[in-house]
Amino acid sequence: MIGGLYEGSERFLDKAKALYPEFYETEYLPEPATLPTDNALCSGKCFTLDFGTHIVGYLTLTVEPSGTPGSPLEVVFEFAEDLCEYDPRPYTGGLASSWLQRATVYMDDPYAPIVLPRRYAFRYVRITFPANTEYTVRVTSCVVRGVTSADERKLLPLPADTGDFMRRIDETGCRTLKNCMQSVFEDGPKRDRRLWLGDLYLQAKANYYTYGNTALVRRCLYLFAGIPHPDGCLSSAIFQEPILRNQSWILHDYALFFAGTLRDLYEYEGDAELVRELWPVALRQAEIATANLSDNGLMDPAYYFVDWCAPLDKAVAAQGIAVAMLKDTLFLAGIAGDNAGAAFLRKQIRRLEQGLLSMYDPDLHLFRTPGGQLSIQSQMWGVLAGVLTPYESRRVLETVLKGDTGADGAAGESGTAADAAAGAARPGLIDTVTPYAKHYLTEALFQAGLRDEATRIVRDYWGAMVLAGADCFHEVFVPSDPTASPYGDHRVNSFCHAWSCTASYFIRRYGLK
Amino acid sequence: MIGGLYEGSERFLDKAKALYPEFYETEYLPEPATLPTDNALCSGKCFTLDFGTHIVGYLTLTVEPSGTPGSPLEVVFEFAEDLCEYDPRPYTGGLASSWLQRATVYMDDPYAPIVLPRRYAFRYVRITFPANTEYTVRVTSCVVRGVTSADERKLLPLPADTGDFMRRIDETGCRTLKNCMQSVFEDGPKRDRRLWLGDLYLQAKANYYTYGNTALVRRCLYLFAGIPHPDGCLSSAIFQEPILRNQSWILHDYALFFAGTLRDLYEYEGDAELVRELWPVALRQAEIATANLSDNGLMDPAYYFVDWCAPLDKAVAAQGIAVAMLKDTLFLAGIAGDNAGAAFLRKQIRRLEQGLLSMYDPDLHLFRTPGGQLSIQSQMWGVLAGVLTPYESRRVLETVLKGDTGADGAAGESGTAADAAAGAARPGLIDTVTPYAKHYLTEALFQAGLRDEATRIVRDYWGAMVLAGADCFHEVFVPSDPTASPYGDHRVNSFCHAWSCTASYFIRRYGLK
Repeated sequence: MIGGLYEGSERFLDKAKALYPEFYETEYLPEPATLPTDNALCSGKCFTLDFGTHIVGYLTLTVEPSGTPGSPLEVVFEFAEDLCEYDPRPYTGGLASSWLQRATVYMDDPYAPIVLPRRYAFRYVRITFPANTEYTVRVTSCVVRGVTSADERKLLPLPADTGDFMRRIDETGCRTLKNCMQSVFEDGPKRDRRLWLGDLYLQAKANYYTYGNTALVRRCLYLFAGIPHPDGCLSSAIFQEPILRNQSWILHDYALFFAGTLRDLYEYEGDAELVRELWPVALRQAEIATANLSDNGLMDPAYYFVDWCAPLDKAVAAQGIAVAMLKDTLFLAGIAGDNAGAAFLRKQIRRLEQGLLSMYDPDLHLFRTPGGQLSIQSQMWGVLAGVLTPYESRRVLETVLKGDTGADGAAGESGTAADAAAGAARPGLIDTVTPYAKHYLTEALFQAGLRDEATRIVRDYWGAMVLAGADCFHEVFVPSDPTASPYGDHRVNSFCHAWSCTASYFIRRYGLK
Repeated sequence: MIGGLYEGSERFLDKAKALYPEFYETEYLPEPATLPTDNALCSGKCFTLDFGTHIVGYLTLTVEPSGTPGSPLEVVFEFAEDLCEYDPRPYTGGLASSWLQRATVYMDDPYAPIVLPRRYAFRYVRITFPANTEYTVRVTSCVVRGVTSADERKLLPLPADTGDFMRRIDETGCRTLKNCMQSVFEDGPKRDRRLWLGDLYLQAKANYYTYGNTALVRRCLYLFAGIPHPDGCLSSAIFQEPILRNQSWILHDYALFFAGTLRDLYEYEGDAELVRELWPVALRQAEIATANLSDNGLMDPAYYFVDWCAPLDKAVAAQGIAVAMLKDTLFLAGIAGDNAGAAFLRKQIRRLEQGLLSMYDPDLHLFRTPGGQLSIQSQMWGVLAGVLTPYESRRVLETVLKGDTGADGAAGESGTAADAAAGAARPGLIDTVTPYAKHYLTEALFQAGLRDEATRIVRDYWGAMVLAGADCFHEVFVPSDPTASPYGDHRVNSFCHAWSCTASYFIRRYGLK
């Protein structure tokens, strides 16, 4: 299903294709201590190699038969980003079990290098010789060719006075971003391996402060612009494989992030021509998002993602996202010189702001959905929409952070110390689930001038993953529930996930030490 | 371990290499009724394709995803020559379980043809989709590219008056031979896939009456001659993969069959130059086999194979093989013009014949080992050695065949009717186990003029496999024990096995109708 509303959709795809990135390769060897010392590996023997860090790449194993092999060599590989993936219990997840990274090979020639053709994302690989062959083997080498479209040589250095822990957090964020940078900004190199607009928006932000690969952002914007839905709405995601196509899901927040991503790119490199070229695409998302506003300016949040939080009422957050992104779109209208578009956007922003403010409770200092629900997601997006005064925005966020206002009791009144340290919600507010949502909370805190509180989230939430041994930031991280998963089985979670990389963005943009 | 005693060993290998055969390819499709009609194959669904005949080749499966695939496609293939291989009980065999023909593939692109790189030998393939992908697939095609170095166009026709059943037996034998004819005469295309001298001797005999591919016989002889053991003894088998090398096992009967194979080839095409070239190799096997004869001309049968029959005392059979093969070697001495060699052979043959005759009991009309054991294997090789008069040879074989002599009671006195029909031993004689051993019994009967009895074995023993649905002749066939296996698990038996192909040789050489 290639094609769509925009004049030049096909040209967009041609441009995306022309921007196919160069790849940078690095050779990785396993930690020597994890290489088997057993020179007679045979039936049932297995070992687990630890490459010491998270890699995306291609593995080659070479073994030397120590007898005279007269039968094929069977080898089973099980790749894991995190050791929890080796939990032997049956898989219970809702996602395809084919995402579990396994390979079984039969080598008619056991002397030949075992070159696995697929790309894997992993730190560990468990290798088993299940067949009772009449010979044994010893491992002579195992090499991984790591691949990324991030150029390490371009990685901007941190200020010299950055502390060790912030450096470790930043390193983890950069590795997360780097390993998701392939032929597109993937969401997770282990699973999905797909270009999502919501992930792209955050990856691109981190990218400007790290690897600065603007061509890849440009390529991704062209891909989205090149394969819209028939009404011009951008898809939530693009598949590279098996064929270039868009995902059928409609997520209006993701579609609106196109404008945010384009604005960020413009602010980074100032290419007005690109903005003019993609302007009709950006404007169309705003038209679609505001097509069915109620008389009092409220929109239907049904097609908004916001966060993986089942009980979440998304009315406020969706409204906040729309306001914030329409403001970015209005900024682009100025670059594109579309006065009529700008006028349309100003009108829609006014209506949306009116609707958003109708959900603000000035006595509570909190946004509240029409259904009466209080959530962190509502507060962060209400603040990021910029409809309150700076003072009031700050007041909302102080109310969110348990113990910071004193209005509802002392700090740490309930919840665990770990939850409090990780910026958990005050009792009664629905909390964020994903690092993705935590990003917007953190950004809201920075924008509201609550630098210490924002820094504490970077240090205590993203930092908790580092302290727990994460090589990359995880798709899902709930400090009080280490096996949390939106998929029914945390082993299929992505442990190197694009939308979690923004700790590096915060550290670098706001100079955290 | 390439190299050895013979001048020109490396030249032999060069010549073998130059004779690498041309391959003939045939496209096979599964029986339409076995193709799945289910258009929504998914998690846990499986089906078994039946190609209607035994094939050696390469499989390509194409499926069409009926949803929008966003995860890899996992497919498991299980190939089987015989349906018994699908017995789900755990494998208990002594041979490497990696011989069980399986493949697990993960397709990042489920639209791409699934091209399995390995060669399989099979009639059936069970295909399972184990992963709970979010999409379903339907099978659009499954094609096998069959490969053989036998040229079907050269297959000699049977006489017009050949009966239907003999035609079916012959067809099965030809298919067995054809599917074992690859880059060498393999023993079994499913398992071992190796050039054995004992198998080659029989395959070459069948080959002259069917496909007439003398270049392949020549290539195999050169391979054996090119990689002897350090003392010049030929190896029992040659590995093509993973590297060209010989097998460490020493089997003197197999080594001696080199002369038999060379004589047969000479008689078929009359190339005296080849005999002269390989003459030192043939002579050396005779020297080695007779190096340690006892004063009364008896040899040590320890390194003789004869048959897969655990209780078998091989003293007579080994002696008989040596006599028969030294006579073939003596024939070759004449072609090679080696008078000294001929004199040596005549002397050794006399000593061996003397030893063999010392084990003949003229009252019983049977050969009996020094340990007192009676076996069919002893009688057939005693007869094939040609040490008895034609009348006495015939008398021995009549004594072997239950009910044919009347000496020990009426036909079918004991044993099942099926056993009797398949030429089973009279009570008290150890019976043959493999079609390989049955070949020599049958050949002995033909040579002794017992044509009806020999024909009955072809019809009732090889024919029983055909009636049981065999597409090719099996490595092991014991009518009263369908799961007989020398390996502890009949599923790893080879169901298309070279040494069982000689029913076609008998039918064609002796004009069986």
